[in-house]
Formats: sequence, C-alpha cells, structure tokens
Amino acid sequence: MIIVMGPDATQEDLVKVEKKIEAEGLSYHLSKGASRTIVGVIGDKKVISGLQMNAFKGVEKAVRITEKYKLVSREFRREDTVVDVNGVKIGGAHLAVMAGPCAVESREQLLEAAECVKRGGAGFLRGGAFKPRTSPYDFQGLAEEGLKMLREAGDKFDLRVVTEIVNQNDIDLVSKYADVLQVGARNMQNFQLLKEVGRTNKPVLLKRGLSATISEWLNAAEYIASEGNYNIILCERGIRTYETFTRNTLDLSAVAAVKELSHLPVIVDPSHGTGRWQMVQPMARAAIAAGANGLIIEVHPHPESALSDGDQSLTPENFEATMAEVKKIAAMMGKA
Amino acid sequence: MIIVMGPDATQEDLVKVEKKIEAEGLSYHLSKGASRTIVGVIGDKKVISGLQMNAFKGVEKAVRITEKYKLVSREFRREDTVVDVNGVKIGGAHLAVMAGPCAVESREQLLEAAECVKRGGAGFLRGGAFKPRTSPYDFQGLAEEGLKMLREAGDKFDLRVVTEIVNQNDIDLVSKYADVLQVGARNMQNFQLLKEVGRTNKPVLLKRGLSATISEWLNAAEYIASEGNYNIILCERGIRTYETFTRNTLDLSAVAAVKELSHLPVIVDPSHGTGRWQMVQPMARAAIAAGANGLIIEVHPHPESALSDGDQSLTPENFEATMAEVKKIAAMMGKA
Amino acid sequence: MIIVMGPDATQEDLVKVEKKIEAEGLSYHLSKGASRTIVGVIGDKKVISGLQMNAFKGVEKAVRITEKYKLVSREFRREDTVVDVNGVKIGGAHLAVMAGPCAVESREQLLEAAECVKRGGAGFLRGGAFKPRTSPYDFQGLAEEGLKMLREAGDKFDLRVVTEIVNQNDIDLVSKYADVLQVGARNMQNFQLLKEVGRTNKPVLLKRGLSATISEWLNAAEYIASEGNYNIILCERGIRTYETFTRNTLDLSAVAAVKELSHLPVIVDPSHGTGRWQMVQPMARAAIAAGANGLIIEVHPHPESALSDGDQSLTPENFEATMAEVKKIAAMMGKA
Amino acid sequence: MIIVMGPDATQEDLVKVEKKIEAEGLSYHLSKGASRTIVGVIGDKKVISGLQMNAFKGVEKAVRITEKYKLVSREFRREDTVVDVNGVKIGGAHLAVMAGPCAVESREQLLEAAECVKRGGAGFLRGGAFKPRTSPYDFQGLAEEGLKMLREAGDKFDLRVVTEIVNQNDIDLVSKYADVLQVGARNMQNFQLLKEVGRTNKPVLLKRGLSATISEWLNAAEYIASEGNYNIILCERGIRTYETFTRNTLDLSAVAAVKELSHLPVIVDPSHGTGRWQMVQPMARAAIAAGANGLIIEVHPHPESALSDGDQSLTPENFEATMAEVKKIAAMMGKA
Repeated sequence: MIIVMGPDATQEDLVKVEKKIEAEGLSYHLSKGASRTIVGVIGDKKVISGLQMNAFKGVEKAVRITEKYKLVSREFRREDTVVDVNGVKIGGAHLAVMAGPCAVESREQLLEAAECVKRGGAGFLRGGAFKPRTSPYDFQGLAEEGLKMLREAGDKFDLRVVTEIVNQNDIDLVSKYADVLQVGARNMQNFQLLKEVGRTNKPVLLKRGLSATISEWLNAAEYIASEGNYNIILCERGIRTYETFTRNTLDLSAVAAVKELSHLPVIVDPSHGTGRWQMVQPMARAAIAAGANGLIIEVHPHPESALSDGDQSLTPENFEATMAEVKKIAAMMGKA
Repeated sequence: MIIVMGPDATQEDLVKVEKKIEAEGLSYHLSKGASRTIVGVIGDKKVISGLQMNAFKGVEKAVRITEKYKLVSREFRREDTVVDVNGVKIGGAHLAVMAGPCAVESREQLLEAAECVKRGGAGFLRGGAFKPRTSPYDFQGLAEEGLKMLREAGDKFDLRVVTEIVNQNDIDLVSKYADVLQVGARNMQNFQLLKEVGRTNKPVLLKRGLSATISEWLNAAEYIASEGNYNIILCERGIRTYETFTRNTLDLSAVAAVKELSHLPVIVDPSHGTGRWQMVQPMARAAIAAGANGLIIEVHPHPESALSDGDQSLTPENFEATMAEVKKIAAMMGKA
Repeated sequence: MIIVMGPDATQEDLVKVEKKIEAEGLSYHLSKGASRTIVGVIGDKKVISGLQMNAFKGVEKAVRITEKYKLVSREFRREDTVVDVNGVKIGGAHLAVMAGPCAVESREQLLEAAECVKRGGAGFLRGGAFKPRTSPYDFQGLAEEGLKMLREAGDKFDLRVVTEIVNQNDIDLVSKYADVLQVGARNMQNFQLLKEVGRTNKPVLLKRGLSATISEWLNAAEYIASEGNYNIILCERGIRTYETFTRNTLDLSAVAAVKELSHLPVIVDPSHGTGRWQMVQPMARAAIAAGANGLIIEVHPHPESALSDGDQSLTPENFEATMAEVKKIAAMMGKA
Repeated sequence: MIIVMGPDATQEDLVKVEKKIEAEGLSYHLSKGASRTIVGVIGDKKVISGLQMNAFKGVEKAVRITEKYKLVSREFRREDTVVDVNGVKIGGAHLAVMAGPCAVESREQLLEAAECVKRGGAGFLRGGAFKPRTSPYDFQGLAEEGLKMLREAGDKFDLRVVTEIVNQNDIDLVSKYADVLQVGARNMQNFQLLKEVGRTNKPVLLKRGLSATISEWLNAAEYIASEGNYNIILCERGIRTYETFTRNTLDLSAVAAVKELSHLPVIVDPSHGTGRWQMVQPMARAAIAAGANGLIIEVHPHPESALSDGDQSLTPENFEATMAEVKKIAAMMGKA
C-alpha cells in the first residue's frame, strides 16, 4: 500500500500513520517530495488489506498496490487450467461451445434445440430451469421438470448439461442433473452461493456481473476456489454502459485481461453481450480471435415464440453458419 | 408495446406480426408513415410483456411502453406509504435517520457508537453482523454474536435495529434480533432472497443495486410486495460510473424519480454513496433537500481502527454536527 | 509517481527503470516487499508527468500520485475565488442564479423570459444564440441577431448576459454582447477554444464534459487559467451513465469535490442534469444544500412551443416557486 | 414519434396534444389501451424532430422512433462506401492499416517508425503534429514542423499520411501535408470543426467520442456529409466505462452496429481502446474478425522514451507479429 500525505499534513499526522503501521506489525519506507510525503507499506498482504488509512488526518489518499485474490491468479499457477467435464475439456487448446435455449420450455422444444446444438458441433447443452427475471410476473422456469428434460436431452445427444443455479438450497437438486453449475451475472456477488458451489466438486461457470470490474470478478472466483473447488470457467457476457443500441457492451478486452491475470479458462456469451441475434455471429468470431476458450450461445428452434430472450436467439440455420466460421478462426488460433 | 417495422419490411412480414398479436388475444392499430409502419399493441399487460417481437423478420425495434411493476407504483396507490417500525415511522412527514458502524466489531465499540447515534437524534441503529465482502479474506462479521450485541445496544438506547441479511436461510435468525431487514446492493437482484423477505412481515430496507436502473429497483421491490410484504423502504446508495474520485456516484435525482413513480419511502446513504467522510455532511443535507425521507450514515467511535469502511465513517463529533444541519433542512421541508 | 515492478521482474529490469529515472534528473526510493518492488519517484512534477514507465519490461503498473493542474487548485490558493461580473458577484457568500430559455427564438420570447427571470430574483439572463446540436438538421440558433436581443433584454432588466460560444473565431463577436462566455459540455476538451477564452478577460462559465472526470474538468479550467484568465466559474450539468430515466445523472458530489480541490466557484444546472422539468425544483434545492454557489436554469414563457429543450424548461410560475425555495436553503447556507 | 399519455391525462390534455400535432401539419393515430392512450405521429421527419411533447401536461413520455441522420445511413445507400485515398482504398474488401507514433517527436524517430510501418505492410502513416492533451503542461506537438516530417516520411516510404486536426483554422495548413484529416474523440461533437472538414474534399477519419452513442457518432458523420464531403471513415477507439484495468472499453459490437446502420467504412484503434500494448494484438485480431475494415495502431521505435502513449505503443517487432496475424484473419474474412 502507498499512502500519500497531503500538502498540509503535519509531522504529527505522519507520526500517527507510522505508529499505526508499526502497531500492525508492518514496515514502511518514506519518500519525501517537494510538497508531499509518500509512505510505502510493506508486510503481510492480509494485514495491509485491512488498513483504513484514508480515515487518518493528513492522508490525501491510500492506494492499494496488489490484488486480494491469490488462488485464481496467474502468479499462483503459470499454466492454463483445463477443466474436465466428464471427458469434455474446457481450456488450453480445446474449443468449448455451449448452446441451447434461454429457458427450457417443453420437452419437444429442448430435444429439437439439442439436436441442432449437436449438429452444429457444440459439446454442451445450455438451458435454464430456474430463471432470474427482472419482474416477478415473467416466466420463472420449469424447475425440476426442466432439469429432467435437460438431462434426457443431454444423454440422448451426448452433450454435457449447463444450467443456472439461483437458490443455494437447490445445489443438490441441480447437481443431480447438471454437469456444470452456472452462477449468473446477477449472483456474481451472492457470496453465500459462491461459497456453496465452492464446496461441491462440480465445474462452475461464473458469469461476470453486470457492472463488475475484472478484479471483482476474479475475487468472486476466489470465493469458489477458497472453498476447495478449482473447476471454474469464467464467462464474459457484456457490461452495463451508457450505450443503448446493444443490450450490454461486450467487453472482449476482458478476455485478454483474464489471460494475463489468471490461469482460468474464459468463454464469451455474445447473445447476452449484445442482445441482438444479428450481432451474435460477428461477436462470436471476434471472441475466439481475442483468445477466448469458447462460447455460450442462445439457440432456439423458433425464436419468435420463445418465452424469453427471443430477440437474441439464433435459429438452427444461423447457429450452424456461426459454428462454421468460429471453427475456422479457432483453427487459426490453434484450438479445436 | 410499439413495434416499428423497418423500411425493408414486406407486407408478408407485417402479416406475420399481426397474426402473432391476434394469436395472443391482443389487438393493434397501424400507423403507416413514409418509410416505416408502426404497430401499436393493446391488451393484457402480462401477455404483451412476454412478446418477443424483435425476433420477427422485418421488425426494426419493439419498444415497451409501460413498466412491469404494479403494487409499488404511484399509480396503484396515490398516498405516500408510511412504514411503522415498532412505533418509529418512516415516510411522510417523518425524518428517519439510521446510523452506526459498518460492521459490529465488539460490544464496547457498538455501545459507544449507539450512545453517539442516540445523542445525535437518530431513531435507528445500523451495523453489520454478516458482511458481504469483495474478497473471501476480508472480515466477514461476528454473525449471531453481532446480532445479540445489536439487540442489546438497541434496547439500551431505545433505537430500532437495522442489519443486513445475506443468506436466505438466516431470515429467522436475523428476524429474532433485528427490527428492519436490509437487503444490500449486491443482493438487489437475488430474487430468492427478495421472495423470502417478502414472506415475512418485517420492514425491509432495499438498497439500489450497484448499477440498477430505477425501473429494475422498483421491480425488485415488487418481488417483495408480490409476496405480501408492503413494508418496504428504498435506499439510494450511489451508482457505479466512470468517476473515480468518489467510491460511487450518489444519484439524488433518483429520490425525485422514486417520489414520482412510487408511493414507497426512500432514504439516502451518503457514506457508501461517496466513500469519503468529508462528503457525508454536504450530501446528507442535499439528500433531505431533494426530498428524501431519511438517511443511513456510517458512524464509528474510532474510524481509524475500523475493520471496514473507516474511510467513509463519521466520528461522533462530525455526526452530531451533520445531524444539526440535517434537522434544519428537514424542518424547512416539513419533516421532523 | 509510484512504479510497481511485477513479481517476474528481473534485477536487470529494475536497473533499466532506475537508469531512466536518473537520466531524467529525478531521484527515487525503493521498497522491496515479498513479491514486488515498489519505486517511489521524486522530483520535478512536469518531468515526472512525461514518464512512460508502463512501457518498460517488468513494470506491472505506474501510478501517478499528484494532479497536473496547479493554478486552479485549492493548494495554490486557499481562499474562495469570487468572480465579479460587472458588479454582480459569483462565489463566496453570493448566490448566483442564471436563467432563461435554452435558445433565443425571438425578441418577444426573450423579453418575456427576461422579465420573468428578473421577477424571480435571478441576476443573470442565459440564452443560446449559437446552439451545438446533435443533428445538423436541428435549429442552430439566431447567431448575431440573437446576441443583440440578449444584450437588449439584459440591459432592459439589468441582468448580466451569459451565452455559449461554439466557434473560436466568434470570441470578439460574442464578447461584444455577452458578460459571461459559456463553454459547453461538448467543448470542455476543445483545447483550442479553452486557450482562446483564456486570452480574454471575460468571465468564463466552464461546463463539465458529458463524461469528464473531476480531474479532467479541473485540467480544462487550468487551460484557461494558464493563459491568464482566472475568472472561471465551473458548472456541474450531469454526467452520462447507464440510467435512462433522466437525461443525465446530476453528480452533486462533484460540488463537494470541487470545493475540496479548487478555489473556483461552482454552480449547478438541474435542467440539463435531469432533462425533466418536474425534477428541476428538488435538484435546485439539493444543489444549494450541497454547497453550490448558484444555479443555471432553463425558463421558457411557453415550454410547449420551445424550439429546443422544452422538456426540461420551467414555466415562469414554476421558476418563481423554485426561487422561493432556493432562497430559503441559501439563507440557511449563509448565501444570498 | 410515439406519445404516451399518462394514466391521469384528461381528455382536455389529449386535445391539446392533438391540436399541436395538427398545427404543425402532421397527422396521427390513436391507440386507446386500458390505462393509457398512445398517439402515433406521422409526417415530415424534420418537423417531428422539433416537437417538444414532454412539455405538455398529461404526457408521460414521447419516444422518437427514427434516427435523424440520413446521408450516412444504410437506408440511404445500400452498398458499402469505399474511400479512395490517392489510390489506396478503405472499405469493402480492402484491409486498411494505419500505424505510427502517437506524436511526431523528431525526424529520426518518424523515419524509423515509418520504415517499420511499411515493412509491416501498412498503407498509412499516422502521427500527431498537434496533440490534444488533458493538461496544458503536456507536450503539445511539433506543429508545422511535424507535418513536414510526416509528408517527407510518407513520400519516402509510399505511405498515405493521417494526422489529427484540432483547430478549425488549421485546415488549409494540415491539408497541404496530410492525405487524411483525423477528427479526434474529444472533438467528435465540435460541430464547427465537423462543418469545416465537411467543406473540404479530404477524406476524414472520425473517431467516436469518449462517451458517444452510436447514434451521436453517426449524427456527427452526418454533419460532415451534409456539407458535401462523403469521404468519411469511422473509427471505434473505446468508450468510457467504470472498468479501470483498461484505459477505455473497446466496443467491438459497434463495428457490427455500424455495418448494419451505415454504409461507411469503420476501422478500430486497439491502442487507445485498451491503453495497454499487451492487448493490442488480441484486440486487433478480434476487430478484423468482427468485420472492421482496418486498424489504426500506435507503433514507436522506442516506446520507453516516447513523449506520449508509450504505455500503449507496439515495438516494431510486435507490430510485425501483429500484422502477420491480422492478415491471416483478414484473408479469412475476404479482405486483403
């Protein structure tokens, strides 16, 4: 931590800061400039992390230098993590594609979607059985019935099943049917849920929060890892900005950032990231070119009658066309 | 809902749109302009809400005209709601002030804080026993021990107790000790938690999410109300923007917006809203002048040694000075 | 400047950084922690400001500690600046209110507006003769005709005249008629225009840019001051965020920030800040309670037929009601 | 335009709205729903654009349906525009790469950079002679001396010259030396400058503003086109968001949006878009995969001693490596 003393700070103010640092068992260096003194604090990261130095008189600002996450950092582990989902891999040289409808609506809809997902060459079937909706009056999902359909469709087409968990008490239930537990953007800082999925050994797909910084996202992943579960896949799904043409602003530079800061695999959701089906194909290509380990894409056999997210769902034809282009870019990037 | 057909839309595209609307039991009006046809859809709000018209060929955009929340809207109830917390009121002509430390750290700290809170003239003691923290390695709260201390301090100084709930399974436990259940910004769209507090009859303090729109915030309140609990107090606590000088950007226009759109009381948190104790006093004054029904302020007997949020906590002296000014503005606004 | 060397930085990397610092005539202190070395750079602020240390191998990040602006800083001048506009003062204990239509539309409209502005007790008449409009097809203003009307109305009602300058080549022309030159939000970083108004001795009203940080805003003011013109009034007018209910998000904490960082007076524009006339009155009260030195408000005799910004203009009746409330809060804040 | 009457609107309110529409020579359709009446306004786009309907009593909101720009829209011209810069083309199947230092610093630096730019296969040399800088104390550029060096280097290596214009009065001067006039992000709504470059026949590179919506950006292009100059190249360069890890958030979905809405070519600036040289290569690949017509990249022979933007400049080696990858993706996209 760097503490900048303001131009009006007195010697007494400085002494109080120094005493506090010593009292915590930390050490420091002083740099005295023309108008400001800078105090560099050294010692145990966790102790430093707890310091509240802006509350001291004379302190202009205290700047934290290091990140709090550790287990998920590239510094902790140099090699890329590859998550194994019952034989299908995510990370490294593997291209992982998850596709399917926003919500499971019926057995017919799901089987039709799954067949198309398989035909397009994806390895994972996605679909929501519990839906987090902005309004209590919107369709909330088929619950366990939906989970059963997902499992059936996954088994029939040899696809791994990814589904969102919105209630910490449903972990056992969802784990019975799903291969990957998804923590949605709205729950990225539902720390209780993070801890609970951290206590399972199921792979977790952790979506970036609506306005989460990359640092907060990696700290959320740390919550899961700190409970013992390292099978984490990150997912960039667009952030909230002032732009209204797209539903969110897909931040593909986050892919490059995660690759630099962490060893975890990262995939991209161009459907929620843009909210417009016309943009899914170009953004899917761009995501893979940026270095993403895969994609999660909404596909619906009949987007016009979808119960949710029809605006951003691909038809089976568009999904196949998208996959063809994605595979070409992936090959160029050394992924398959 | 208004559907704008693009300039390239064919007659066939339009017919498909019309048929869909009719199939859902809705009706419509057409406005044919020079280059675009506009379709105004009329009928059952919930049915319209489920339409996915952007997925139709030829549709340029579909614009939703009405909000989905109902019970919390000003349209539903004209008069201001006044929430009664065991005899202390929030809303209408009542000035509600909640104050106390970010986290309960010890019995001594809390009693000292509570005395100062009482002396300043506040009616509520706030303090966290379960803390939602960005990093798993930060102080997570004293749990039930903290709740007991809150109750003791509240009883001793005749203050109502407000504390955050972060785990849906803790509702009974927290309700045993607290008078008001706080749902924090990170959980504003934890819909499971919203439903659970909606099934109690405890007053709920619902903080605005870090990047929630006013519409999403009122829909979150609707989740609570739709389960039967109308004792909701909204709390503006700053939104996330590009500005880094302050921790968040306190959006005081949200106070005026809520007054226009809803009958619920709204208070303001200038501590989290700015993240800088120097700004708490001016922003507390401004909040009341904007029409807020009260404030929630972090006060710590010794901010320099706080375990969290010391940067934004007022000392007892500053709290008393702030209260003196706030009361003058409140009087001018017809509140006490 | 603080330079943080990454955990993989070699001794050679560090030596290169040290040599660069020495080569620039600067000095430094090293703080060696467990995994990172921190280099504190000391010396001439302008030289440090030019360093590009992130471009060096092994550097994790370089953090700038001090702001670049100087003349407009509170550090440079402790006392509040009071700008004298031909006898009417802005700053200190003076309440400055500027009011009038968004655009000058006709002689009648302007005289009617000016009379109402005067009756409400404002000291300044505002009105645009050159309008910066998003689309080239929107009304662009009456140009010199409009300036003449402004001068006439100002003289008739003893009001100082404030008008926007959008073209650096019009400074002489506008200065002939106006008492205060306004630099609009879209031109806050039109550095050429800033320099040109800095070479006049006319008071300048500098609006905050649509997404300008407080630091960038004060640096823009520094451009004006560095050319010799210290008669600068800052104006907070709302920033761009994700919220769409209001046109912008009025950032009243910026008032408190400016008071801390600078000696310049700051006023608030609740009309552009919210874009909704219903919100102007509460936000005007809040602005003064936050410590602002004044307001700039759009008033139109007939908002319904305004050529621009009718949505956010007050009627004469609403303006008078707003002024009555504002004056009460101002009195409480020791301003008149 | 769609006008939504609030639930409390009276028949009298509605009649006033109708009369206003008729008075402007426009027509309308009414859709009466359960609680709200919707008025669809039809007629001359420019007249509708000037309506201020939110100022009418009883109006809940007025929603504009169509964009104001016309000449730059895809609706106006179906085929992609290809801009010819003295024989080098931008748009369609042409891959346009502009590269060079942020600022022209010396003849040696520029010639060295230009040689590397040519070797990498770029067709354009970029470099700033007039620099818009946040602080008046930062390096402001070499002015005409810099322009001469740019011309010399461009001629020597057969590269077209791109440089920023910051002062409307310098257009003749800059046009003497440059092939493409760049309007920077900070000047995107400097409407006077837009009009002036619109009166030349020089190709204009129009960067997106720091927080400009796609609609505002296209309206800015319309300013140029409406003066007669259609040789416009758009440039996405990152927008301002809450994320601080990157300098800006590169919005690659804007590329897909522009392709849908406009016929103009669009290139991407991954250097300013990320502010980190490590991210330039992945984002350059992603931009081309998203469908961009080209790139503008900062390259400096010695980033460590750059006078500006060293943090985000590529070394010659990294530039060549980046170009090799970009060309592979471009080939896949049918561009060369």
